[in-house]
Amino acid sequence: MLNSYLNLVKKLTEISHLNGVMSTITWDQEVMMPDGAANARADQVATLAGVVHERMTDPVLGEYLEELRTLTEHFNPAECCNIREACRQYDLMTKIPKRLVQALAELGSKGHMTWVQARQENKFKDFLPVIQEFLMLKKEWASCAFPDLSPYDANIDQYERGMTAAEITVIFDQLKTTLMPLIHEITHHAYQPDTAFLQGCFPIDKQAALARKISEDIGFQFDKGRMDVSVHPFCGGSHPTDVRITTRYSKYNFVESIYAAIHETGHALYEQGRQIASADLPVSESLTMGIHESQSLFWERMIAQSKAFCTHYFDSFCKFFPENLQTVKVDTFYRAINACKPDFIRVEADELTYPLHIILRFEIEKELFEGNVSVNDLPELWNEKMFTYLGIRPPNDTVGILQDSHWSGGAFGYFPSYTLGAIYACQFYRAIQSEHPDIEQLVASGDFSSIKNWLNKNIHSQGKLYTPQELILRITGEPLNPEHFICYLEEKYRKIYQLKGS
Amino acid sequence: MLNSYLNLVKKLTEISHLNGVMSTITWDQEVMMPDGAANARADQVATLAGVVHERMTDPVLGEYLEELRTLTEHFNPAECCNIREACRQYDLMTKIPKRLVQALAELGSKGHMTWVQARQENKFKDFLPVIQEFLMLKKEWASCAFPDLSPYDANIDQYERGMTAAEITVIFDQLKTTLMPLIHEITHHAYQPDTAFLQGCFPIDKQAALARKISEDIGFQFDKGRMDVSVHPFCGGSHPTDVRITTRYSKYNFVESIYAAIHETGHALYEQGRQIASADLPVSESLTMGIHESQSLFWERMIAQSKAFCTHYFDSFCKFFPENLQTVKVDTFYRAINACKPDFIRVEADELTYPLHIILRFEIEKELFEGNVSVNDLPELWNEKMFTYLGIRPPNDTVGILQDSHWSGGAFGYFPSYTLGAIYACQFYRAIQSEHPDIEQLVASGDFSSIKNWLNKNIHSQGKLYTPQELILRITGEPLNPEHFICYLEEKYRKIYQLKGS
Repeated sequence: MLNSYLNLVKKLTEISHLNGVMSTITWDQEVMMPDGAANARADQVATLAGVVHERMTDPVLGEYLEELRTLTEHFNPAECCNIREACRQYDLMTKIPKRLVQALAELGSKGHMTWVQARQENKFKDFLPVIQEFLMLKKEWASCAFPDLSPYDANIDQYERGMTAAEITVIFDQLKTTLMPLIHEITHHAYQPDTAFLQGCFPIDKQAALARKISEDIGFQFDKGRMDVSVHPFCGGSHPTDVRITTRYSKYNFVESIYAAIHETGHALYEQGRQIASADLPVSESLTMGIHESQSLFWERMIAQSKAFCTHYFDSFCKFFPENLQTVKVDTFYRAINACKPDFIRVEADELTYPLHIILRFEIEKELFEGNVSVNDLPELWNEKMFTYLGIRPPNDTVGILQDSHWSGGAFGYFPSYTLGAIYACQFYRAIQSEHPDIEQLVASGDFSSIKNWLNKNIHSQGKLYTPQELILRITGEPLNPEHFICYLEEKYRKIYQLKGS
Repeated sequence: MLNSYLNLVKKLTEISHLNGVMSTITWDQEVMMPDGAANARADQVATLAGVVHERMTDPVLGEYLEELRTLTEHFNPAECCNIREACRQYDLMTKIPKRLVQALAELGSKGHMTWVQARQENKFKDFLPVIQEFLMLKKEWASCAFPDLSPYDANIDQYERGMTAAEITVIFDQLKTTLMPLIHEITHHAYQPDTAFLQGCFPIDKQAALARKISEDIGFQFDKGRMDVSVHPFCGGSHPTDVRITTRYSKYNFVESIYAAIHETGHALYEQGRQIASADLPVSESLTMGIHESQSLFWERMIAQSKAFCTHYFDSFCKFFPENLQTVKVDTFYRAINACKPDFIRVEADELTYPLHIILRFEIEKELFEGNVSVNDLPELWNEKMFTYLGIRPPNDTVGILQDSHWSGGAFGYFPSYTLGAIYACQFYRAIQSEHPDIEQLVASGDFSSIKNWLNKNIHSQGKLYTPQELILRITGEPLNPEHFICYLEEKYRKIYQLKGS
């Protein structure tokens, strides 16, 4: 083994350890930290981030990589992956001028505060300069990081590597063409599922016990992770043996907390399923945001919103909440949790309307980066699209263009990953189904192990060995193909809503 | 302001930030971390410790200090303190050969595991080589760190700076002379307080609510800290605005959990009371282990084990645990929680027998360092002294010489701080009393603010400005003087036990 490869591994491992520490204190900040500690913590995080940045841009690391990047024929695929990923990371970090890094960090922190207030006060005008400035900085960043890509493609590449706005446009146009008329048909249909019983009073300790039970049933290992409460549910943690998910509880709605926990468990199974032996090296890391989201959506939607899953857990639900569900049948429950109802807020959207929330944001980002729209006109553009796609018009910007935090941190190009994840999830489900034709019976009997093992073997343990394009081809025999997602939605929702052609 | 001083402040602040991060993940390890993450966490901690060590021994830091250490007349007392403390730390870190640092770290981690098993299996022989090796390494460490001090004095200096074994011997001999006959008289006295009602069933959620209430009453700021559960109660946290205490709950005993919480609150008030403006500089740091312990013991014993405190809280206790306390009177309660009963285990010892547990350990450590006793003979020496001092003989080493973790980590010289802390606490109480003669009425009425403010002003906010010797002289007008502690114990226990001369 070349010395410089061993040295590289040592350096990457140290960086990974420090990133692990950072993840733990980030989790702590969201879940445990007392409010009064915010300033002190910000200082501590900034210093640690400085140490990590120093190590990631260490010229000695650059020298190892310079030697290794031309010698890949000496290494096995996992080693090649580590070298390739380390080069990508190092190049990205060293190509961006320090001034730009600082400007982005400062705007990120200022932008978030500005957004919180602007949303609260429904004042898009106050937030407008943040978008404008980020757009400028992100274009400059793109020209440094990926001079061969268009600025928006360079930003997309951060979340869904190898994907372009042009490819996404083709996929999203296909979705629009089918989903818009389907949603229209549903919302104007006479039959609507009964959802009244989902509102009520559901003791939080029971919700928490149920969330833990389901999470454990589908495979979350509590000896290598935790489940807690935070304002926004997320999956964090510092290592495959320390994966931490959160959910949030409302006394009045148990479906939201349970499904948020299942969603985060999907992310967590990905993290717990990474290769332990190379846990501190890039080859074991999760592939892209889109693939990560495919794992959470796989469990939340493909599995947990299925009839089979409802069938398996309905007795438990009734036992936990007897007063609320005593007169409800499992089929009624299944229809209720899948009810489709256009609404303003993305994070509360159902499976069917969700993609249109994403498409709207993607189209706006594209126009912004291409300079076809002025930032001033964004709220009106947002509301127009909302009306065209979902037939509703936001009464104010708080529930319109100001609802998401993404742009306040400069995360342009992130949104498409949510819906790409849903498409991946559907294709993965089909692939498992062709290997386990009895998948529905397995779920109905509460046996999730074959499914989890398939994901472990084919996705989680593969880390960054392949590109997303290679991975989906290897596993499903096909490239990313929205047809499966469209068929799945058509079939499922025509049946639930008793539409013609079901 | 000299540039090198500003540079020093910058470097020290960065080190403090990283130490803050370390504190948070250490807390996390004890309170939150899933068991399966132990190995990964150890790697992360080791890497972060390496970064901190690198920064603390940075030759550039050494150059600033070289310039500053002779220029102290240009600086105010706080600045002088920062320079002095930074020099002490830097010298200590750079004087110890790397080989020795590593050997101590390795033995510390191996020693702890060996001790856990040896204690479990009652096999002192297995633990013996750890003591032997630590003794050798700690003597070598002493000769590098403080060549002018005797090896044991050098080790004591780590916990109670400026104190020597000779001085401690004088103090401890005074304690022995009075406490041994007093304990003998008590244990052979006909009257013994009724303590039966302290055993029972005390719901843990009620204990937790009570612990939080009392902690908050005496001044713990929950917006700048947390209270959680851990195997061993401790006070941690990363900053005066993020102080984290723990306690532990047994269903069968509420006094232990409440008093552990009060003890840790005492530590926490010290940390929350540090100077915020210089929170990342040595001048604001707590002074010594002994002074820290004085703060926890002040609240646990001088305040919370007093009749006035019991009087104030007895109604609450009865309200929280009506079944257990309905026939009990406050005076009975006060006597019960102060009952004196020689036992084998230090951490469960009462106020009166506790010093003898410490004196025993101090004398053994001294003999060990002076080479007057062979490690082989330690268990017998321990048991002999136990019999002489407390009239009981441990049935095995698990409850004898193997009970404490300190030696497994090489912490020789630590034990005296516990009893020095008790002596300080008593002198501080007297000083407050002379300023607030109504201190007992204040406590009885639940008004702790004057007491807390006095401690904040005279101790917490003074940080490392003075030596412990200077501090106690400034505050009490006297040097450390065990007479007050002895008088306090004599008076209190003669009264409780209705002995002659009370």
